[in-house]
Amino acid sequence: MSLTLREIAALVGGTLTGDGHIVITGANIIRDATRGEITFAEGEQALKQLASCSASAVLVAESTATTTLPQIQVPQVHAAFAKIVTHFRPAPRSLRRGLSPAAHISPTARLAEDVEVAAGVTIGDDVEIGAGCTIHSGVVIMSGARIGAGTTIFPNCVLYEHTIVGPECILHAGSILGAYGFGYSFASGRHEISAQLGYVELGPRVEVGAATTIDRGTYGATYIGEGTKIDNQVMIAHNVRLGKHNLICSQVGIAGSSSTGDYVVLAGQVGIRDHVHIGHRAKIGAKGGVMNDVPADAVYVGIPAGPEREYFQSLIGLTKIPQMRKEFKELKRKVAQLEEGSEGERRGEAA
Amino acid sequence: MSLTLREIAALVGGTLTGDGHIVITGANIIRDATRGEITFAEGEQALKQLASCSASAVLVAESTATTTLPQIQVPQVHAAFAKIVTHFRPAPRSLRRGLSPAAHISPTARLAEDVEVAAGVTIGDDVEIGAGCTIHSGVVIMSGARIGAGTTIFPNCVLYEHTIVGPECILHAGSILGAYGFGYSFASGRHEISAQLGYVELGPRVEVGAATTIDRGTYGATYIGEGTKIDNQVMIAHNVRLGKHNLICSQVGIAGSSSTGDYVVLAGQVGIRDHVHIGHRAKIGAKGGVMNDVPADAVYVGIPAGPEREYFQSLIGLTKIPQMRKEFKELKRKVAQLEEGSEGERRGEAA
Amino acid sequence: MSLTLREIAALVGGTLTGDGHIVITGANIIRDATRGEITFAEGEQALKQLASCSASAVLVAESTATTTLPQIQVPQVHAAFAKIVTHFRPAPRSLRRGLSPAAHISPTARLAEDVEVAAGVTIGDDVEIGAGCTIHSGVVIMSGARIGAGTTIFPNCVLYEHTIVGPECILHAGSILGAYGFGYSFASGRHEISAQLGYVELGPRVEVGAATTIDRGTYGATYIGEGTKIDNQVMIAHNVRLGKHNLICSQVGIAGSSSTGDYVVLAGQVGIRDHVHIGHRAKIGAKGGVMNDVPADAVYVGIPAGPEREYFQSLIGLTKIPQMRKEFKELKRKVAQLEEGSEGERRGEAA
Repeated sequence: MSLTLREIAALVGGTLTGDGHIVITGANIIRDATRGEITFAEGEQALKQLASCSASAVLVAESTATTTLPQIQVPQVHAAFAKIVTHFRPAPRSLRRGLSPAAHISPTARLAEDVEVAAGVTIGDDVEIGAGCTIHSGVVIMSGARIGAGTTIFPNCVLYEHTIVGPECILHAGSILGAYGFGYSFASGRHEISAQLGYVELGPRVEVGAATTIDRGTYGATYIGEGTKIDNQVMIAHNVRLGKHNLICSQVGIAGSSSTGDYVVLAGQVGIRDHVHIGHRAKIGAKGGVMNDVPADAVYVGIPAGPEREYFQSLIGLTKIPQMRKEFKELKRKVAQLEEGSEGERRGEAA
Repeated sequence: MSLTLREIAALVGGTLTGDGHIVITGANIIRDATRGEITFAEGEQALKQLASCSASAVLVAESTATTTLPQIQVPQVHAAFAKIVTHFRPAPRSLRRGLSPAAHISPTARLAEDVEVAAGVTIGDDVEIGAGCTIHSGVVIMSGARIGAGTTIFPNCVLYEHTIVGPECILHAGSILGAYGFGYSFASGRHEISAQLGYVELGPRVEVGAATTIDRGTYGATYIGEGTKIDNQVMIAHNVRLGKHNLICSQVGIAGSSSTGDYVVLAGQVGIRDHVHIGHRAKIGAKGGVMNDVPADAVYVGIPAGPEREYFQSLIGLTKIPQMRKEFKELKRKVAQLEEGSEGERRGEAA
Repeated sequence: MSLTLREIAALVGGTLTGDGHIVITGANIIRDATRGEITFAEGEQALKQLASCSASAVLVAESTATTTLPQIQVPQVHAAFAKIVTHFRPAPRSLRRGLSPAAHISPTARLAEDVEVAAGVTIGDDVEIGAGCTIHSGVVIMSGARIGAGTTIFPNCVLYEHTIVGPECILHAGSILGAYGFGYSFASGRHEISAQLGYVELGPRVEVGAATTIDRGTYGATYIGEGTKIDNQVMIAHNVRLGKHNLICSQVGIAGSSSTGDYVVLAGQVGIRDHVHIGHRAKIGAKGGVMNDVPADAVYVGIPAGPEREYFQSLIGLTKIPQMRKEFKELKRKVAQLEEGSEGERRGEAA
């Protein structure tokens, strides 16, 4: 599978500078590339890192000046590098094999043309699956669920009853849609489970990360808007409503009935309390704890989360406290001295 | 499936005010309800929100004054609304189908009457399952586990060896009971796994959320008390012992050997260090980090967690620092001036 | 299965003090042990707790003075106690049953001798599995993955395409290796998924906790070094590179392209931002948020994480603010008084 640098330049339609006879055996990022491999560099910092990289060649943008390594210039660095990586580690054949005889499919389920259902999948009564979907092994789709066309569901996902998944969604392994919300009423010393009659609905092109859980609504939908991308291990509680094109990073938790506008970004490990709204395009910094509504376009950080600038001022203030306490002590001493002096004077005057 | 408002009033045994001929096609919460749907309103705020809600009718409590919408008054708003929602979106038929021929059940497992085991379930040697249990697809119950009567285990849960689950428990999809504790001893530059001989035990009516993990004890049980409810993505480490009727919210982590009393509430993303005890009825606020024992009835917040009042005082203090620093500078200037003055006087006197 | 204390002493090769005829019916930790059971005590605190423990006998180290309970002294307390526990609750028979006929194994997969594959496992094309591996029910191993000899994969794990697992690894239930990284480029108002061509690679003797997720690299490996142990519900993002013998506690999140040296410890719920490096032997305290590189041997805590000492000084400072504000007010009053006095004098002088 090894290629000469000249062959790689041809593969990606790039401009070669340096020895085209060099044999390239793999492709790797700067941090990991070793002798015989080609890497890529984009941006000042990456170009500097080339100095300590043992790659044998480098892929760069057309505008980049000549580097110390044999190089290939291309218009789209990432697209070209992806092509090279794919040459060295080809994608697995994705044979479409249709419905596995080892899948458990209810006779009342309705599957469109060209649906791929792997071994060990369970599909319940009255489930509908759109054209071109791929359902990997171990997925369980409970009764009444509906999956839009072109959606991929990776292994061991679970869709509870009545879940609705839009077209062209990706659900990563182990994600769980539609478990009961965490809602209880307290009576006679016990927590009694409340109504769990709702469902989960994902708009088109939503992506859900591995081991992420989205609970059903109490009476209606927990809803995720079109194009919103959710990372791994995110928890979205009952009745939540996310807008379009949000980015929800890993390990975020959103409590019951909260909502977001469009283009919202929640960084890793953020927590959102229940019944608050995050406005359009707002961003919450990593580990932030949101206790109140966040206005559109705001950047909030901290616990409780507030405007970024105030937070950093508080942080700086916090680091100044020890020095301030020291100076404060000194100032108290001085004032005491002054008081003594002025008292002495007064007493002197009185004498 | 649509009903007139009068028919709905009859369905829930409520008192109708307004036009009973209105046709209702669905039921939804205030935020999501559209024309033709009935909603419900409970409490001041909800009643205010009705003004901007496009629902065609509303369900309210008997004591509520007449609203601007056609309304039905009932004694129990939630119970009545649940009935209406269920009319419009009936629960899936829960046919009891018995033991699926596509389940893998050890010949030494002992299953009581009326146990439902779906396709793709694996049940190991010597497992015992009580009457009326429902085991959904993809669940793996390893050898020696015992499940009490009336328990439901949703898809793709895993119960390691010797796990004990009480009666009438609910385990949501992807929850994992009995994985090894994170205990290692360090020798010759390596972490060597310690004894993993214990198991997990859930009391009666415990509920476990989706993708929650409860690790086995080192030698004995990791124990969850009767009636305790655990949300999604909670991590409970080896040897932990939770009391009765706790509420453990999403993404909480409880480290090894810690314990709680009864009626404890841990809000979302709380972390509890190892070997601490949380007293009866104590509450820990969201994202709190508990480093020491918490007394009964306490409300703790913050990292490290402390009494709520102290925490909020500190928070307020923190926001005052920038202003305080400014005033402090001014005060130092004044004192310097005063010192100069008094020195001048002393010098004057000396002269 | 009950034994006399004398029989237990013989079982563990220990020295008996007290009545050897006592009948022992079980073994439990101090907190949980009841009458008729044997417990163990190691260290001052545990010995004190014996006073309020209802165990009928105790296992102690050879150096320990006589306790109030009948006791057995042994050189290795934990090893001996593990033996006793195992007597009372024997490990499940781990019959090697070979390849289950109810497993779905691609004809192009290559399995070494003595591989155990349970019912409901799916193994894709070109997968390689080394000698002596155990693959539990519901595991899905996608095409091109390679598993080293002696590795155990617990139920319902998912290994995406091309995942590499070293020898003697343990993957706990529900862990997911190789899902797509959370990388998007933004164009025409949409987030477009970036290249997802890499894979996950675990070195030898790596352990991965239940429901932990490790995403694939963008072009190459997300790599976990030899002997590193990862707890439950940990999230490791694309392109991360962990060193050898790390301990990564529960619910930690490590963002894209970050890396660690050897013997690093990350406590529970820590978050590491993207593109930072944690030096050899560094420790990050629970819930810490790492925003920048951490030097070797450092102990960092807090959000943002910094040296432990500075953090605790800030914390102490924070608690002093209310008192400081009070004293500050008083000081301002005094200075104002002094100013008035000196002004009076000046006026007096001027007069």
